[in-house]
Amino acid sequence: MQLNRNFLRLKNSYLFSAVAERTAAYRKAHPERRLIRLSIGDVTRPLAPAVVAAMKRAADEMGRSETFRGYAPSGTRMGYPSLLGTIVESYARKGVALGEEDVFISDGAKSDCGNLSDLFSADNTVLIPDPVYPAYLDTNVMAGRRIVFADGTEENGFLPMPKRDVRADLIYLCSPNNPTGAAYTREELKVWVDYALENDAVILYDAAYEFFIGEEAFARSIYQVEGAKQCAIELCSYSKTAGFTGVRCGYTVVPRELVREGVSLNRLWERRQAAKFNGVSYVTQMGAAAVFTEEGERQIGEAIAYYRENAALISDVLARLGIPFTGGKNSPYIWMKCPQGMDSWTFFDYLLNNANVVGTPGSGFGRNGEGYFRLTAFGTHEDTAEAMQRIAKLLEA
Amino acid sequence: MQLNRNFLRLKNSYLFSAVAERTAAYRKAHPERRLIRLSIGDVTRPLAPAVVAAMKRAADEMGRSETFRGYAPSGTRMGYPSLLGTIVESYARKGVALGEEDVFISDGAKSDCGNLSDLFSADNTVLIPDPVYPAYLDTNVMAGRRIVFADGTEENGFLPMPKRDVRADLIYLCSPNNPTGAAYTREELKVWVDYALENDAVILYDAAYEFFIGEEAFARSIYQVEGAKQCAIELCSYSKTAGFTGVRCGYTVVPRELVREGVSLNRLWERRQAAKFNGVSYVTQMGAAAVFTEEGERQIGEAIAYYRENAALISDVLARLGIPFTGGKNSPYIWMKCPQGMDSWTFFDYLLNNANVVGTPGSGFGRNGEGYFRLTAFGTHEDTAEAMQRIAKLLEA
Repeated sequence: MQLNRNFLRLKNSYLFSAVAERTAAYRKAHPERRLIRLSIGDVTRPLAPAVVAAMKRAADEMGRSETFRGYAPSGTRMGYPSLLGTIVESYARKGVALGEEDVFISDGAKSDCGNLSDLFSADNTVLIPDPVYPAYLDTNVMAGRRIVFADGTEENGFLPMPKRDVRADLIYLCSPNNPTGAAYTREELKVWVDYALENDAVILYDAAYEFFIGEEAFARSIYQVEGAKQCAIELCSYSKTAGFTGVRCGYTVVPRELVREGVSLNRLWERRQAAKFNGVSYVTQMGAAAVFTEEGERQIGEAIAYYRENAALISDVLARLGIPFTGGKNSPYIWMKCPQGMDSWTFFDYLLNNANVVGTPGSGFGRNGEGYFRLTAFGTHEDTAEAMQRIAKLLEA
Repeated sequence: MQLNRNFLRLKNSYLFSAVAERTAAYRKAHPERRLIRLSIGDVTRPLAPAVVAAMKRAADEMGRSETFRGYAPSGTRMGYPSLLGTIVESYARKGVALGEEDVFISDGAKSDCGNLSDLFSADNTVLIPDPVYPAYLDTNVMAGRRIVFADGTEENGFLPMPKRDVRADLIYLCSPNNPTGAAYTREELKVWVDYALENDAVILYDAAYEFFIGEEAFARSIYQVEGAKQCAIELCSYSKTAGFTGVRCGYTVVPRELVREGVSLNRLWERRQAAKFNGVSYVTQMGAAAVFTEEGERQIGEAIAYYRENAALISDVLARLGIPFTGGKNSPYIWMKCPQGMDSWTFFDYLLNNANVVGTPGSGFGRNGEGYFRLTAFGTHEDTAEAMQRIAKLLEA
């Protein structure tokens, strides 16, 4: 019996678990203090009424034999046609033509992001931005792949571009980026697509935050760039779009045009999912299908506007304090430089102890994150305002 | 860029997809005929009223800011305490003492069954019963592992026992077995546990059908056998227990006592799930938490009794026809010998064409399944009765 020894090469603890543990310890030691969490990217606005109504209708259907539903339909990538239809239409509104067969429904972008690893040999070289959401790195360490980094720095606005002398087979991109909030324009993404095509590489494009993009120049889908269907898989989520962090639904586009070594990756992923997955709750899928209706979009638009106000408030306070930051505009994340030359975990503790505000240490997102700190716009107005007041008071002093 | 070439070694199509495709083709060619599916193990009874009510309550909670829930709680294996508590109690009623930390909530046993593969090196030898549910084989082919089989035959009642001269690192067991319906007694399972302990192996024990066991001699959990916590992971599902095939919830027990190479597999699985999974819908978890309440158990008991009647009906007809079979007693599956020496797919077509009944070819479950055929008890009474009438008429003639 041999364990997968690659696990032993993982850093000791998953970033968000580490933050949660340290926060819980503080809470226990100081039960009287009210902590405000601007840390994990969890949402706080309730589900849209249209979504709740659709879920309750679906639950009722599941309680009657005539309308009960078992396993998700086969031959449709486990998605109910009514849900797949809304996704294909939402792409059409972005100018992207997809077929329902290109779209796979899942229990969230995080699952697919990790599980897609199954399709590729351990011998590939993986290119991962730094800083970025740590799951890309961890899942590839688990798979034992060679990893190279694309450095995001203050100089390039945390938007690394490909280097001709770096060869990569799998490329992770996240735009708007978690944690830096920086987003690629269509022109910048085109450079990545061309690089991938030249290198016969596959891009795994995490579009979880695309709904926060307000400016036309930025890509809302990598398929808005010519050639992307031949080299990119796109991961999408209802988590931040519609507050589904606790509902669990996402969708992944594996275009039929994406072929490597003569094999369709769409077919390969279908095969992987048929053996290791069994679809998403009918109740959840009906809730998700309500998201891209006219009523649903209006309602989720309100939640996104709410978070945008938080992002603007955080940005304003940081600007007033003269603290450099990125994000906050086309993104729910604000990536700030730690003041007074503090490192990320020192600032974490400083903020926790002196302002009772929880953020996320930038160093958890990669080497280039050291000295930076992530705040999120997903709290309530009241909490966000109070947290920023506390931060201002602390840092002005 | 290299694909995972192991995928190319998979058989062309996942068994159930193949059955679905052939059935769809027949339906298209003969739209006027009413097919009855006694094939895929999908259920037909609606969700219990207690489950539907809990799901609707939870959906309402998700629609109000005060009771909205985002990501599943951390530090509890992604399960809500109210659900974990009911699972630990249901084990206690079987005489098995577990802690909540031993239990991981997932979107279904199939996902966990495939994803657990991540914890083990590709260099292990895997022992898989033949015949058995094809996902064990397919997921290990994908991982590139050496595979040996434990032969289930008419002679051993389709209950293979370990052979001392076969060395294995990972052992899959499914009891009651899918497809044969055969179940291990506690004494038989003890032999497997001892074998695993002697070989330093890990057993992946699929208990998806344990709720169909009515006789005390048969194990409802591998942990009813001494020593199992040191060598076994148990996969459980609400799919067949409570009609959750379309709801997606299961739970996997990785006991803290299970240690290999000095590493806790419980910690390893927690780490894997933290990086590649994000929990199960709050709405689903609240539905699942209603299953093991007094009211819930009474209601799901009715559905299981309903399916048991189907199993008895199918068994009675086969016995009357003089066709050898296993299962149907502590299992929803009936595993019949194909009549007149037909092979499995020939009988599939024969039954489809002449009785318009869809079953599952035994050869899809392994080499030893050739010449056998699986029927399931998950249909309605009316459909099951009519299907068996048609079969009797066809085979008596």
